[in-house]
Amino acid sequence: MENWAQRIRSGDLRALARAATAVEDRTPASQELLRELFPYTGRALNIGITGAPGAGKSTLVSQLARTLRLEDLQVGIIAVDPSSPYSGGAILGDRIRMQVHYSDPGVFIRSMATRGSLGGVAAATSDLALLLDAAGRDVILIETVGVGQDEVEIARLADVTVVVLVPGMGDDVQAIKAGIMEIADVFVINKADHPGAERLEREVKAALELARRPDEWTPPIVRTVASEGQGVTEALSEIRRFYNTVPRSRRTIENWALRLREMMKDRLLERFSFEEFRAAARDVAARRRDPYSVIDELLGERTRN
Amino acid sequence: MENWAQRIRSGDLRALARAATAVEDRTPASQELLRELFPYTGRALNIGITGAPGAGKSTLVSQLARTLRLEDLQVGIIAVDPSSPYSGGAILGDRIRMQVHYSDPGVFIRSMATRGSLGGVAAATSDLALLLDAAGRDVILIETVGVGQDEVEIARLADVTVVVLVPGMGDDVQAIKAGIMEIADVFVINKADHPGAERLEREVKAALELARRPDEWTPPIVRTVASEGQGVTEALSEIRRFYNTVPRSRRTIENWALRLREMMKDRLLERFSFEEFRAAARDVAARRRDPYSVIDELLGERTRN
Repeated sequence: MENWAQRIRSGDLRALARAATAVEDRTPASQELLRELFPYTGRALNIGITGAPGAGKSTLVSQLARTLRLEDLQVGIIAVDPSSPYSGGAILGDRIRMQVHYSDPGVFIRSMATRGSLGGVAAATSDLALLLDAAGRDVILIETVGVGQDEVEIARLADVTVVVLVPGMGDDVQAIKAGIMEIADVFVINKADHPGAERLEREVKAALELARRPDEWTPPIVRTVASEGQGVTEALSEIRRFYNTVPRSRRTIENWALRLREMMKDRLLERFSFEEFRAAARDVAARRRDPYSVIDELLGERTRN
Repeated sequence: MENWAQRIRSGDLRALARAATAVEDRTPASQELLRELFPYTGRALNIGITGAPGAGKSTLVSQLARTLRLEDLQVGIIAVDPSSPYSGGAILGDRIRMQVHYSDPGVFIRSMATRGSLGGVAAATSDLALLLDAAGRDVILIETVGVGQDEVEIARLADVTVVVLVPGMGDDVQAIKAGIMEIADVFVINKADHPGAERLEREVKAALELARRPDEWTPPIVRTVASEGQGVTEALSEIRRFYNTVPRSRRTIENWALRLREMMKDRLLERFSFEEFRAAARDVAARRRDPYSVIDELLGERTRN
């Protein structure tokens, strides 16, 4: 185990890959490993990138990775996004955008499966980011779809959160924008060569004027055409400007409080097997018992207080 | 309290509205009320409607409500969707699509806020559906964005799950489709007058041939132009065909097992205040303690086992 941790810290890619899988599977060994590695974390810059499907998040992530590699930085990418091109076997679309990085050991890519899994994605993502941090990755890019609550929570765990918008996606997307407005440290208007970029920027600015952040930061708006690499350097420098301007301490404490809460949720539910819920469900479905009493009873059996 | 439950069961709209708010706020009184009303639930048809932003879910929901009202059925609508036009004050877009129902007491509309809230949305949605069921709503339409994990879980709680797709939204949306493929009982291709509807239907069919469901049901694909009411009756009849064809018992038990699990999660976390997590987070952020030991300790203090 100690050897495993040491190999990871020294940059051994096979040890890291094995650990990443163990963390995703939440094995007991991975928990021990994370405990051991934790003191060596806290060095990486965690960037959350979120936005609606079709906003071009993956392309932006890929281009950010490219730019960071030109600075000779070690990069980690975590995709928590069912629509991401580097997700598992279920993907029909283009994995081509990320293929450029597959042969580069300086870019470590992992996707988190969200489909079918029950809970634990936020906590597992957080653990994976810690692992990559301990393994010496300088920057960790965490891509999520910014619509679900889980995804927004994950984005919140990052040091800096980038919200990616695109012009011309209609009212629905504008509304989502309102939903994730408050978590954005930096806005990126991607596909800025499409009609409506100007108008979208005006709308975001107007919305920002109404919102007042406790840290007094006004989120900048960067226009990009990620598919051609345009604006990516500016986006990165705005990300770093936020990171260097706004005191990290308070942000980090809030992030950790959220992470601890996620971890607690997972740990608490471990005590119950799905089979127990299924057995109780038979009575409830038949209206023999009500669900609220069932929960009381299960709780009473398992814990005091 | 008993009086409150009776008023709800007799169709008193003010009592129902007050109860819906109490359920959303998760007040102790609402839990008592739900316990009392539970034996009178299980009559309503719960339809989950999910899909990417921009797929036209709200329009479809509105048209389904309209069709159900023509049959003189009592309808409940629950929107768990930050982009929904009947969500709260944050919405920039068109609430017009639903306005037609605002003056009709036969359509009871509630939206669940997901933004900023931490957990509990799935459980609260489930409780709200039970309340509407006890209040005599014949059909309950539950709209969610089918990207986040929470949303998918909520969709799963329904008796029938409809996945709404649209042509021409590109690979990202196709990939999402893969993510929610397995929960769809009925597919709706909305905006079917747009180019690419044919191709999308072929793709869904191809994907369905690869997937095999334990209940042997082959999800039908219905084309709609919801904005003009086209295909809505067919969609409803396919929803009913699933409901009447596939034995409900097993489905319902699985649904209840999931609901019970959600309820347990909420109940377990109630024991911890966010302030406790924040206090521990200070030590963790400073690397004085590791998060895994913090969780162990908090758990040890609060519970045995």
